[in-house]
Amino acid sequence: MSLIPLRDDLVPFLKPYLPANKVQGPDSKPFVTLTYAQSLDSRISKGKGLRTVISHLETKTMTHFLRYHHDGILIGVGTALADDPGLNCKWCPTGETADWQCSPRPIILDPHCKWQYRGSKMHELCTQKQGKPPVIVVKKRPAQIAVIRDVTYLEAPLNVDGNIDWLPLLELLQSEFQLDSIMVEGGAVVINELLSRPDVVDSLIVTIGAKYLGKQGVEVSPPAGEVELDGISWWKGLQDAVMAATPRT
Amino acid sequence: MSLIPLRDDLVPFLKPYLPANKVQGPDSKPFVTLTYAQSLDSRISKGKGLRTVISHLETKTMTHFLRYHHDGILIGVGTALADDPGLNCKWCPTGETADWQCSPRPIILDPHCKWQYRGSKMHELCTQKQGKPPVIVVKKRPAQIAVIRDVTYLEAPLNVDGNIDWLPLLELLQSEFQLDSIMVEGGAVVINELLSRPDVVDSLIVTIGAKYLGKQGVEVSPPAGEVELDGISWWKGLQDAVMAATPRT
Ligand SMILES: NC(=O)c1ccc[n+]([C@@H]2O[C@H](COP(=O)([O-])OP(=O)(O)OC[C@H]3O[C@@H](n4cnc5c(N)ncnc54)[C@H](OP(=O)(O)O)[C@@H]3O)[C@@H](O)[C@H]2O)c1
Ligand SMILES: NC(=O)c1ccc[n+]([C@@H]2O[C@H](COP(=O)([O-])OP(=O)(O)OC[C@H]3O[C@@H](n4cnc5c(N)ncnc54)[C@H](OP(=O)(O)O)[C@@H]3O)[C@@H](O)[C@H]2O)c1
Repeated sequence: MSLIPLRDDLVPFLKPYLPANKVQGPDSKPFVTLTYAQSLDSRISKGKGLRTVISHLETKTMTHFLRYHHDGILIGVGTALADDPGLNCKWCPTGETADWQCSPRPIILDPHCKWQYRGSKMHELCTQKQGKPPVIVVKKRPAQIAVIRDVTYLEAPLNVDGNIDWLPLLELLQSEFQLDSIMVEGGAVVINELLSRPDVVDSLIVTIGAKYLGKQGVEVSPPAGEVELDGISWWKGLQDAVMAATPRT
Repeated sequence: MSLIPLRDDLVPFLKPYLPANKVQGPDSKPFVTLTYAQSLDSRISKGKGLRTVISHLETKTMTHFLRYHHDGILIGVGTALADDPGLNCKWCPTGETADWQCSPRPIILDPHCKWQYRGSKMHELCTQKQGKPPVIVVKKRPAQIAVIRDVTYLEAPLNVDGNIDWLPLLELLQSEFQLDSIMVEGGAVVINELLSRPDVVDSLIVTIGAKYLGKQGVEVSPPAGEVELDGISWWKGLQDAVMAATPRT
């Protein structure tokens, strides 16, 4: 489905939160934008595996505008399995034509190799030259993998708990794949973890759809407790609002 | 503490959602506005009994503006016990002086008579002629109550589950106390119940503070599942956004 035009006022609203507008030191980690769409009751889907429309078409276009401004786009394997997302970018500035070069490189956090690239939407888009091939972040590279052109496995640095260690992972993504900016699009596990990591997240952009999904939905709320934000701005659309901010360190 | 001035653009934003601007039939129930302040992660407090600042001073003034436009203000006993709220109105139009007559009549849903009016903030405000005396909605009027001037007990109509039955209660509040409009301010039990009652709620006004309170907070999310809204508008402030809508019947 094609996108509706980007609302003009989204550009100045988002500008201060985009990678190009925040100065990073020479040895610094990639710029990380955490972004997702939630209902008023902070649900990001009706239930795991249930595709849910939360945001209006105007904020959908915004998502593609954000993708255009990032080198990489990261999701957890739960989202890859539940939604089979394309993760490419369909927006580009007037005068340019959206092609695979506008799209960010997908990164799937899949420690236990649960996700199949073959037959996925990402595979289809990549074959059609409408998206880039993914980097799959695993704990251990699978010994026998069906050779699929373009897919890259990256063995993740692990922390003491055996989970993926964010800062070394980001550094690897930068040094090995030249990804200087990464947009994190979900799902719940990744978001809930990163909300309490102001050392990792540079910008936070949350779309709020004006509906309730109810108690059974997949919830975003940091298990580690309160999170304060700085540099807060709001944008309001027809049905949705968007909040942009920087997590307080 | 006194209020900061009301932001000018809040008046036209709220107007379509106020009781005076919605036509009610002659025999209809009181107009009900459900309103509360939440964090991004849909928490209305850090934890039961933990007083929590969610909204900015500009939306605090809005709350008093809303109180000015309602005859009654209803809360559950959990909120009365946790927060000891005053529930009076400190805002009035330029040229008028805020006094007890501007304030809505407090209504406490206290089926098991847990709350003590004596010594409460409401008692203090009423004594100082800065607020109206409450109506306490109980399952059974206490046999021996210390006589406190002005407090009124109302025996609630109950539904088959033994819970308070909203529509007959509202009719009683209208016929016995001339309350044609009632603002419901919380807490979680009352809000979660009423979000799934479009037959009761006429306007919904939600303030969203740009912070996360975390998993342990007191949550709003309808247990009965999805709730769609109509007539959605957003207002944006410095730190908060406000969404106003009508629950879809
Ligand atoms: N509304 C939105 O904006 C939005 C966006 C994206 C997704 N979603 C929704 O979110 C839901 C899926 O979310 P989800 O709860 O399954 O979460 P998820 O974050 O997509 O995936 C979680 C899985 O990713 C792996 N993972 C994530 N972080 C890790 C870390 N630091 N270290 C090691 N492994 C890590 C783990 O895999 P293992 O279990 O193999 O260890 C974990 O179970 C779907 O319903 C989807 O629709 C909504
Ligand atoms: N941010 C905000 O806008 C806001 C506003 C208000 C309150 N709050 C917060 O909310 C928390 C308190 O909420 P809460 O969970 O205790 O809920 P609550 O709704 O304030 O009180 C719940 C109690 O009220 C009675 N009740 C409510 N509805 C009833 C019904 N239909 N029938 C019979 N009884 C009914 C019951 O009393 P019994 O248990 O005796 O049966 C119930 O347990 C506090 O932390 C407070 O700070 C936040």
